[in-house]
Amino acid sequence: MTMVHPSVHPIEAPPVTDHAVAMPRHTLKDTQGMPGTLGGFLLRSLQFSFAVVSLSVMATTSDFPSVTAFRYLVAAVSLQSLWSLSLGIADIYAILVRRGYRNSRIVSLFSIGDGITSTLTFSAACASAGITVLIGNDLNDCAQNHCSRFETATAMAFMSWFAASPSFILNFWMLASK
Amino acid sequence: MTMVHPSVHPIEAPPVTDHAVAMPRHTLKDTQGMPGTLGGFLLRSLQFSFAVVSLSVMATTSDFPSVTAFRYLVAAVSLQSLWSLSLGIADIYAILVRRGYRNSRIVSLFSIGDGITSTLTFSAACASAGITVLIGNDLNDCAQNHCSRFETATAMAFMSWFAASPSFILNFWMLASK
Repeated sequence: MTMVHPSVHPIEAPPVTDHAVAMPRHTLKDTQGMPGTLGGFLLRSLQFSFAVVSLSVMATTSDFPSVTAFRYLVAAVSLQSLWSLSLGIADIYAILVRRGYRNSRIVSLFSIGDGITSTLTFSAACASAGITVLIGNDLNDCAQNHCSRFETATAMAFMSWFAASPSFILNFWMLASK
Repeated sequence: MTMVHPSVHPIEAPPVTDHAVAMPRHTLKDTQGMPGTLGGFLLRSLQFSFAVVSLSVMATTSDFPSVTAFRYLVAAVSLQSLWSLSLGIADIYAILVRRGYRNSRIVSLFSIGDGITSTLTFSAACASAGITVLIGNDLNDCAQNHCSRFETATAMAFMSWFAASPSFILNFWMLASK
């Protein structure tokens, strides 16, 4: 019982450093809803659709220019729809070329733009909701006003803000966790 | 010309790992405005003061309960003032015992609470602003309404929101960068 084959068996050393570098550092990078993902594109579509519906419904009422808050709502949802359309196109491009947005500057630009447009949409929706409730509940004056259209436009603006919030929070989180 | 001193000179190895562990990982941890710092306490004081002034001014008008948005403003700034008072006391405690809030759960609780209260305050301020502008500019009916008091209360609620936003953003950033 002696060692008959005292030969050296070479073992491949595991490439420790290369492996560590190849590991993803940020697990949130490919979360659905981030810019450049299908979830992000769906969020942009929802924002755009709700903003356009809100704009159309408000624009069909003949007397919206007489109230400052309703004019402000029209301006805010117009801006929101343009912003969401642009970012949706950017998402489609990123999906087609199979790349995400990793650049810190672009993500901070997206985050700031999302913060501004969603805050404007939310403030306009709140102002319109205050006036709609004033007309409908406090003054009971729906007979000579388009209460249902005002309510629909306000609700759609709120829905647009609901769809815009995840985009803003995810972008901000991605920016902060870098 | 031969080597006359072929002696080995020992060199102290630098303590790489210990040094790396001792380095601070998060440079944002002691930024002024975070919970448990003097800046954080000042922000809380500003939020509390503006919310209390807004509440007092709105409560002195006799006809605020007839408008839903003004009742909502009173409720929202009451909640904001209670929240800011509690967090301000927590900041004073942290300054006195010379410790910050590093616990991830507490910071996420602060962040969520800040998000909710500041959103409520902002929405109430926007709704009140819409109605104040409707009364003052669109209907020109300031003669039989307390326009200036409504405007003051709304402006103070906006100021309270402005002071609440940095707290929320810093807490959220601190939470995301952990």
